[in-house]
Amino acid sequence: MFSTGTVWKNVAAVRQRAPIIHSITNFVVMNTTANALLAAGASPIMAHAPEEMAEMAGIASALVLNIGTLTKPWVESMMLAGMAARERRLPVVLDPVGAGASSLRTTTALEILEKVRPAVVRGNGSEILALAGAAGDTRGVDSARTAHEAVDGARALARRYGAVVVVSGAEDVVTDGDALWLVRGGSPLMPRVTGMGCTATVLVAAHVAVAADVLEGAVTGMAAMSAAGALAARRSQGPGSFQVAFLDVLHSLDLVTVRDEVEVVRA
Amino acid sequence: MFSTGTVWKNVAAVRQRAPIIHSITNFVVMNTTANALLAAGASPIMAHAPEEMAEMAGIASALVLNIGTLTKPWVESMMLAGMAARERRLPVVLDPVGAGASSLRTTTALEILEKVRPAVVRGNGSEILALAGAAGDTRGVDSARTAHEAVDGARALARRYGAVVVVSGAEDVVTDGDALWLVRGGSPLMPRVTGMGCTATVLVAAHVAVAADVLEGAVTGMAAMSAAGALAARRSQGPGSFQVAFLDVLHSLDLVTVRDEVEVVRA
Amino acid sequence: MFSTGTVWKNVAAVRQRAPIIHSITNFVVMNTTANALLAAGASPIMAHAPEEMAEMAGIASALVLNIGTLTKPWVESMMLAGMAARERRLPVVLDPVGAGASSLRTTTALEILEKVRPAVVRGNGSEILALAGAAGDTRGVDSARTAHEAVDGARALARRYGAVVVVSGAEDVVTDGDALWLVRGGSPLMPRVTGMGCTATVLVAAHVAVAADVLEGAVTGMAAMSAAGALAARRSQGPGSFQVAFLDVLHSLDLVTVRDEVEVVRA
Repeated sequence: MFSTGTVWKNVAAVRQRAPIIHSITNFVVMNTTANALLAAGASPIMAHAPEEMAEMAGIASALVLNIGTLTKPWVESMMLAGMAARERRLPVVLDPVGAGASSLRTTTALEILEKVRPAVVRGNGSEILALAGAAGDTRGVDSARTAHEAVDGARALARRYGAVVVVSGAEDVVTDGDALWLVRGGSPLMPRVTGMGCTATVLVAAHVAVAADVLEGAVTGMAAMSAAGALAARRSQGPGSFQVAFLDVLHSLDLVTVRDEVEVVRA
Repeated sequence: MFSTGTVWKNVAAVRQRAPIIHSITNFVVMNTTANALLAAGASPIMAHAPEEMAEMAGIASALVLNIGTLTKPWVESMMLAGMAARERRLPVVLDPVGAGASSLRTTTALEILEKVRPAVVRGNGSEILALAGAAGDTRGVDSARTAHEAVDGARALARRYGAVVVVSGAEDVVTDGDALWLVRGGSPLMPRVTGMGCTATVLVAAHVAVAADVLEGAVTGMAAMSAAGALAARRSQGPGSFQVAFLDVLHSLDLVTVRDEVEVVRA
Repeated sequence: MFSTGTVWKNVAAVRQRAPIIHSITNFVVMNTTANALLAAGASPIMAHAPEEMAEMAGIASALVLNIGTLTKPWVESMMLAGMAARERRLPVVLDPVGAGASSLRTTTALEILEKVRPAVVRGNGSEILALAGAAGDTRGVDSARTAHEAVDGARALARRYGAVVVVSGAEDVVTDGDALWLVRGGSPLMPRVTGMGCTATVLVAAHVAVAADVLEGAVTGMAAMSAAGALAARRSQGPGSFQVAFLDVLHSLDLVTVRDEVEVVRA
């Protein structure tokens, strides 16, 4: 179902249609994720003033809500933007950074799930387990669980909220609550760079904005991420040069790289 | 009037005098623009607490106001800093990021123009047209208009507020409302990197801080940006390596590069 | 006392134990310092919501307070986090960015010193002198004084607050108020990159989290920084490629580099 051709179709569509992705995200990764979107051919906009949220929903093709450095006023803007997006049937992608590490993060992520009904939730194993109600053991913002340990939690979460759930890991897991897809690629260097998870989230948003459906966009977004990450890692000497190579590769990502560097299989 | 020698004079003066540039800017580009200023030899300071604004005006040589991730409290700090700068006749450079994309952005930029009377406004075609009162068609924060389409708007805006207006594009336009200068250089990779426009803004601020007059500083700042961008692009494989090369080139920018990589002509 | 072996022991311990470092820091360097911690093998978490501060103290191994873009609400979060850390005897490292440049910065840094009693204060010469009560002549956020000019101030400050004081410079100074250590390495490129001082601060925090005592951690953290900086500079063409090389070198820092690139001597 999700062949190399499907991934490539969406990589090309992002470049051709340049979807505007509105992000309300954390301070650490704003620059990183904006650059990843630009390298992929999308058009990022960062805005969080409550007064602007309705207008942003009017020009954006997808909305990213990332709670990585949340505070109450930012959560209010996220809710405003999220509700405006829901009204316009704009896809929302939630990145529940650090869910399980503090009750503010867990309850905020659950409130967004409940009220905004995101199309996609992308987190690491600990975060997804925390939201699924299991003991997430979130270790700060880095995961203490593999993606595979979170498969049951991901499925339960997907069914409960009608969302596609993506669990990042050495092997990524994508599920709509029923079907389960595995994305194999990437590199062990990726967790050594801050914001790689958040970058996956925005690429998923860009792909969902152009894909045939949400599940397809989630899978192809993660596949593009994994393909670029795998090739970039081979051209790198460490986490510094990896970041540089990642943007270069993402910008010139071609069919051969997608075919050779990532494997998408149904589990 | 603005020969290679004039550009070079100001490049050297920034290095020699290391002007302190106070920025109240958006979260996405704070790191990028601070690094560009340091690479150029200037001394950046980022501060936005209302309590500090008067003191910052006392130590800075120029002020940058960038509304890229504005909220009401940040706008209040911008107004405080802007008024303190105006009182001290400190040059202010306004970057109206996303003007036209939301009414908050448009009205904030116009309020700053009205009350602070910036020495320079630097935006893309859509932003400048939005402020000039034409239909800007701002496409998120990326421009839907070329710099040339915005020439009349730029001239009108410059006259209305007594400011030098810079419109970034494949070819940059600089006008004081009367004379019109074109800066030719740069690279198509630049709009694929976030914050390149904001970087042009801070380089203009650094040049205005050392230049004979505002128009000269605006032109030479844009010329330094374009020269560094053109050479960096030839040393790059994509938007990741471009960012690295840009800072390296800016840091070691020499007379030959300024002479060969950028053309400044009177229109 | 602080041989190459001691430095290496702590470099290895950070990798092995991956201490969680909670930072409340400035917007300019959040990405930079998170990446440095990850490259060194530590686990960064950025969080500043007042509601989370107690929980963060429960999972972190050290706390960094950096006042680089402070405002009143952020200072309140810093105080909450700082008091929670003090209660749990968690080491706190204070980076008084711009102390002396505004009274808000100076008084905030002094309030943190007074109430939180940080284990370490790391600043440049001007900042440390400003806190020691001498005329700091802080030039924006860049130092107008060498580390050596600040030795007496550093000693006085260390004694007054029972803290280890680190003064960054061409040669770094570390003192507990009594013993004085010099760390020789680094590169003149480092002050041309924003956030290198703040990066030293977080590496000190990571080392203090695993070291035998605070003084040892402060010295070995600065030594790791200096060794990585010296080698990275030789592999760079300017401040852009330096940043890339710095993360790569930090990630693969080995005993030979520590032995050859940095000298730690008792003054």
